[in-house]
Amino acid sequence: MGRFVNLVTFEEAVSRIRKTQWNPISTESINPELSSGRITSTPLHAVENVPKWNRSLVDGYAVRSEDCRGVSETNPLSLGINGIVEAGRSSFRGFIENHCTEIYTGGLLPPDYNAVVMAEDVERSGDSVSVLKTVKPWENVQRIGDDVPSSSEILGNSDIIRPWHISALISSKVQTVEVYRKLRIGIISTGNELFEGSEGYIPNTTQRLYLDYLNRPFLKPESGGVSHDDVQEIRKLIRKSLERNDCVIVTGGTSLGGRDEVPEAMAEIGNVIFAGSMIRPGRTLTMYESQGKPVFSVSGIPIPSLMSFDVYFEEYLKIVTGIKAYHQEVSGRLSSPITNNAGYLGIHRVTYFPGIDGSKVEIAKSKGSGSLASILNSNAVLLVTGDKEGLPEGTVVKVKLLGDTK
Amino acid sequence: MGRFVNLVTFEEAVSRIRKTQWNPISTESINPELSSGRITSTPLHAVENVPKWNRSLVDGYAVRSEDCRGVSETNPLSLGINGIVEAGRSSFRGFIENHCTEIYTGGLLPPDYNAVVMAEDVERSGDSVSVLKTVKPWENVQRIGDDVPSSSEILGNSDIIRPWHISALISSKVQTVEVYRKLRIGIISTGNELFEGSEGYIPNTTQRLYLDYLNRPFLKPESGGVSHDDVQEIRKLIRKSLERNDCVIVTGGTSLGGRDEVPEAMAEIGNVIFAGSMIRPGRTLTMYESQGKPVFSVSGIPIPSLMSFDVYFEEYLKIVTGIKAYHQEVSGRLSSPITNNAGYLGIHRVTYFPGIDGSKVEIAKSKGSGSLASILNSNAVLLVTGDKEGLPEGTVVKVKLLGDTK
Repeated sequence: MGRFVNLVTFEEAVSRIRKTQWNPISTESINPELSSGRITSTPLHAVENVPKWNRSLVDGYAVRSEDCRGVSETNPLSLGINGIVEAGRSSFRGFIENHCTEIYTGGLLPPDYNAVVMAEDVERSGDSVSVLKTVKPWENVQRIGDDVPSSSEILGNSDIIRPWHISALISSKVQTVEVYRKLRIGIISTGNELFEGSEGYIPNTTQRLYLDYLNRPFLKPESGGVSHDDVQEIRKLIRKSLERNDCVIVTGGTSLGGRDEVPEAMAEIGNVIFAGSMIRPGRTLTMYESQGKPVFSVSGIPIPSLMSFDVYFEEYLKIVTGIKAYHQEVSGRLSSPITNNAGYLGIHRVTYFPGIDGSKVEIAKSKGSGSLASILNSNAVLLVTGDKEGLPEGTVVKVKLLGDTK
Repeated sequence: MGRFVNLVTFEEAVSRIRKTQWNPISTESINPELSSGRITSTPLHAVENVPKWNRSLVDGYAVRSEDCRGVSETNPLSLGINGIVEAGRSSFRGFIENHCTEIYTGGLLPPDYNAVVMAEDVERSGDSVSVLKTVKPWENVQRIGDDVPSSSEILGNSDIIRPWHISALISSKVQTVEVYRKLRIGIISTGNELFEGSEGYIPNTTQRLYLDYLNRPFLKPESGGVSHDDVQEIRKLIRKSLERNDCVIVTGGTSLGGRDEVPEAMAEIGNVIFAGSMIRPGRTLTMYESQGKPVFSVSGIPIPSLMSFDVYFEEYLKIVTGIKAYHQEVSGRLSSPITNNAGYLGIHRVTYFPGIDGSKVEIAKSKGSGSLASILNSNAVLLVTGDKEGLPEGTVVKVKLLGDTK
């Protein structure tokens, strides 16, 4: 058992991650049009009012609401038409008493008018209309700043920029946005079995899994290569990957028993944050710090490796980017009881089913820690803390969605 | 009001979409490594068993479980060590009675053995061990096909391929996957106000919003350009975009009132599926069919335009790809009552909050149809069908998440 005799608790592991001095991730100024999915590093405020002018929300006729007081189908108000205003062009030639202006959705409300009567609430004949309905001041008008007032906050600090935020940023004339640089992640695989022709050769699915899973707008994963179970070779790849990246993941090369190529390779490169922790799966996950950068030494078995990495990576990511939620959380009722190893954070694969009689969380069936099958139909993860030996059926739990819902 | 006097119901609009003959989307064979986020066009089955061999799930010693019957700390079994098996390499030299084989996680279980005793359950001294605990047959062993049996289904038809599916595909030696070609979408903006220097110039945020929102692995949105409010110019862009794409979106150029550049432009190109429907926002959304391809004529006001487009686009997408869920659905309780226009499908922007006392759905505050502000802090959409004039506080509703949770 060697290095893993005294596993720290999950809470202790997290506390050590929080106490470590990690390199800050630098920020960059980019065009809002290119910012989809990036993380803000400062709050972003509207520069100009949106809309910049009073605009009609409907197709109809611009009027003074006071002129339409008391009008109705039996007491219509007859008005001449003084030009047409469409979005982007206008033939309005100045206000005239007893005239309205034909106006289309998005058109700028001409001065002196303060409301728009909808086209369906007038009777038109040639160059005049009969208004059949009263309108309140500013009815059917979107006033200056109604949508996004100048100086209002569009995004807070450490928010993920969504497509609609970009609309608000561009509309309100924000020229550049300050975001965290994409976090660069190097992924190194170790294992003689990953080389074709080796005994019991297995394809390197773990590196592929990390590359795809971490392919998000605010991350930049790259392969750091594949190494044999050789301390020198592993150390060389880690050194190279640390030079290029903010964070390095090394799969394989460590176990509860005797394999210790990665610990040996890391011995002269970095400091141990924790060597194993009480989480399942993932007891042997070891985290190092090297010149302010994290190195995650994880299992080579794809699903348990990723599941356990994810809980600690989220902690690191929250520290360096301030991001509030890495996964969308949802809640539902457990459809069956769940057992948990006392003292251990249990990382359980589940399926979330929404329903109008309440949402349901089903435990994915699993055979052993290598089970790919258990995740194929699951879409979320349930974390059960070590103070619980299980949860009864019907417990309402929060789970983290793994799928991509965009 | 012209063309929009008789709006069809949402249900009728959907029924017409379903009755239309749309061009099928062709499929392509791609490498599983490049298939993340794509939609399968056939079910995919494992070619080989995963694992291909019996493998150890732990670090320990390979034994015959029957030899360990009755052993305990007070009655240990002493065994010699006949080689070492690691993942990818082995010094096992054939079975010998009264010997075990040192084995590491992922190592291939040598023939004649049927279990692995964990390293922590033996006492080792030099080249022999004392086994202190019994093991059941196949304990700590992942047997051939345990994870993904040969021929088992990894993905069904019209499923979205997630990173873990790729692990299963590669592990089980699936060489190529058949997926739908990326659906190509052209987005054309119309409006004089979108040209710098025009009266009331507004930046073209709507096209940007569509481009970012539709940026998914199984879609390929592209700009189809920007046109003045000119029938010839609009028609030219639509024709060009239809040649290159499976589907075209035209923003602006239509309204409840008099603007009708897009209907005129489309008159000689395609057939009307429906001209306006009872949805809010989005009453004027008009859908055409041209040579088996849909053309969506939508509002130019970003948020209401996208929200209304999305409900019909989802229907189209389900028809041509068979995709089951375009958005992740979640359910929760309404934290306030909601009013709905009778007869209209209401598209309401909401915020979903998960909680262990149940999930909550809050209605986003909105001022008029142009409101960007209402979506900035919302993360989901609630559809209320026209048979309801509202929903009381506390109703459990299903909503569609808009954010990206990957």
